[in-house]
Amino acid sequence: MTAPLAVSMGDPAGIGPEIIAKAWLARRRAKLQPFFAVGDARAIERVWHGPTARIDGPEAASRVFAKALPVLSVEDAGAITPGSPDRDGAQCALHALEVATGLTRTGAASALVTGPVSKAQLYKIGFNYPGQTEFVAERFGIAGENAVMMLAGPGLRVVPITTHVPLASVSNLLSVELIVAKARATARGLERSFGIADPRLAFAGFNPHAGEQGEIGREEIDFIIPAIEQLRIEGIDAIGPFAADTMFHPRARAGYDVALCCYHDQALIPIKTLHFDEGVNMTLGLPIVRTSPDHGTAFAIAGQDRAEPGAMIAAIKLAADAAARRAADRA
Amino acid sequence: MTAPLAVSMGDPAGIGPEIIAKAWLARRRAKLQPFFAVGDARAIERVWHGPTARIDGPEAASRVFAKALPVLSVEDAGAITPGSPDRDGAQCALHALEVATGLTRTGAASALVTGPVSKAQLYKIGFNYPGQTEFVAERFGIAGENAVMMLAGPGLRVVPITTHVPLASVSNLLSVELIVAKARATARGLERSFGIADPRLAFAGFNPHAGEQGEIGREEIDFIIPAIEQLRIEGIDAIGPFAADTMFHPRARAGYDVALCCYHDQALIPIKTLHFDEGVNMTLGLPIVRTSPDHGTAFAIAGQDRAEPGAMIAAIKLAADAAARRAADRA
Repeated sequence: MTAPLAVSMGDPAGIGPEIIAKAWLARRRAKLQPFFAVGDARAIERVWHGPTARIDGPEAASRVFAKALPVLSVEDAGAITPGSPDRDGAQCALHALEVATGLTRTGAASALVTGPVSKAQLYKIGFNYPGQTEFVAERFGIAGENAVMMLAGPGLRVVPITTHVPLASVSNLLSVELIVAKARATARGLERSFGIADPRLAFAGFNPHAGEQGEIGREEIDFIIPAIEQLRIEGIDAIGPFAADTMFHPRARAGYDVALCCYHDQALIPIKTLHFDEGVNMTLGLPIVRTSPDHGTAFAIAGQDRAEPGAMIAAIKLAADAAARRAADRA
Repeated sequence: MTAPLAVSMGDPAGIGPEIIAKAWLARRRAKLQPFFAVGDARAIERVWHGPTARIDGPEAASRVFAKALPVLSVEDAGAITPGSPDRDGAQCALHALEVATGLTRTGAASALVTGPVSKAQLYKIGFNYPGQTEFVAERFGIAGENAVMMLAGPGLRVVPITTHVPLASVSNLLSVELIVAKARATARGLERSFGIADPRLAFAGFNPHAGEQGEIGREEIDFIIPAIEQLRIEGIDAIGPFAADTMFHPRARAGYDVALCCYHDQALIPIKTLHFDEGVNMTLGLPIVRTSPDHGTAFAIAGQDRAEPGAMIAAIKLAADAAARRAADRA
């Protein structure tokens, strides 16, 4: 029998608890595999009046899932006030992430889904990673450039080659090695987690019109084109660089399986323009499956029953599908 | 009676002639005002077998428009081979642009619509402007920063504050003065050409997450926020800066009339993702109305009857609407 998925609750004062509860409510309609929440059960009960079941380990989750939302309580988050994050909540979010990651590493959970955390709050308690992705990667001994953040929606997958850095520094951060490393992990991830044989990787140019042969910038000539040539030698179906503005309309998207973009907004503008309420963040390059809804804690609407669970539901579905595909490949 | 619109043909070897002819065919369905093409009539007849009427001035255009596509021939473009641009064609495109601009300046044409040109071809014959926009602006004595390129589709308007420059140089090009000048012209243009009283201008941040209060770059703090404050003092409804990736989904777009973006792809990725076949480029800040379909010459498909006229039709409609609004305001 398949192990359940572990869903870390994220910041207890954010919308994480609410969207996990709403995902459980949608379990039949959305055909969700059994999962369990990890965090402080009171954070869910504070914003939702449906049935919860405190469990003491993953094996109990599948038994109770049909009747109640299973919750593995890991830490008392103190006084929880939706919309008002504090240090106790950040500590609980970090502990939940650690436990959920560990249970996935042992196989007790089949995949990891992480709820939204507040980086600002985590930094206050000594968290020193750029985000949850890097934290999880380090738990598996994976170097940053080999862990890849991919955003996936129904009609588009994108990978930002650089992420939360000043835009003016991106040109200095780009290198053939970085692009090749990210592309290799992306290609392998699409094969392993999505079952796409020979995935087509399309590269966005860095400059307007992909630099027009060096007329408007040289990053394409210096970094992207050599990386594409290297990848092709390795047998990876890499194409481009393309003018980024003409890559994301429906006809263009039909030509590739994933778009590799040079910087954060180049990747996230198109995916959030097209799939704002259903975008999933998946980390490729890990020995486990990890997904996350592609949105933040939304403190401003926490506790008001206004949070949309679409992205969390999509994150759980995508994680379950990917885990099942990997398990079948191993069998 | 309203003067007809002047539509310069663009490069005769590109898709300009074909999409002008197809726009004329759609004149009743799309309720287009009378217009006339400016260029070499043979370029249209080479790719289209409908009726054309050579005219010797704009006043004849409205008389014949119902029965034939009026063409003001300005120059022999030599041997025209669709898909194979040459210097004669570039010369014809430039001459057509000059004549169409002049006729609009005198009022003989009510607005200017420009077909797609090849910048590479124009540069070969000595053209020394970044694009048609700057050429037209100079004909009216308008400085570059006061002429604004706006891209408009049915659900979104965007203005790139910088355009065809290397992305790594944008940070150095941004200034409070540039942003304020572009925003002023944008606000005035939306009032004059679209009849939007007190238009809402939303500013995109330059860095990921709009810089997170300086944590991920300082361009927001150094340039964008002071510009917004200055604009508000002037009575312009300026808001932001916002994280660019969350500005373009439908709920976000409902909150503003135009998005001002820091660089080319930040503006053009969302508009072309949403409105690839119907995007119109409109120049704000001129004493006349000028629009253009938001695509290139598409030499690869020229002469094959495969070009989509949607953007040209939208450009003609938008120009006619804007010209009518301005005429009404003057009356």
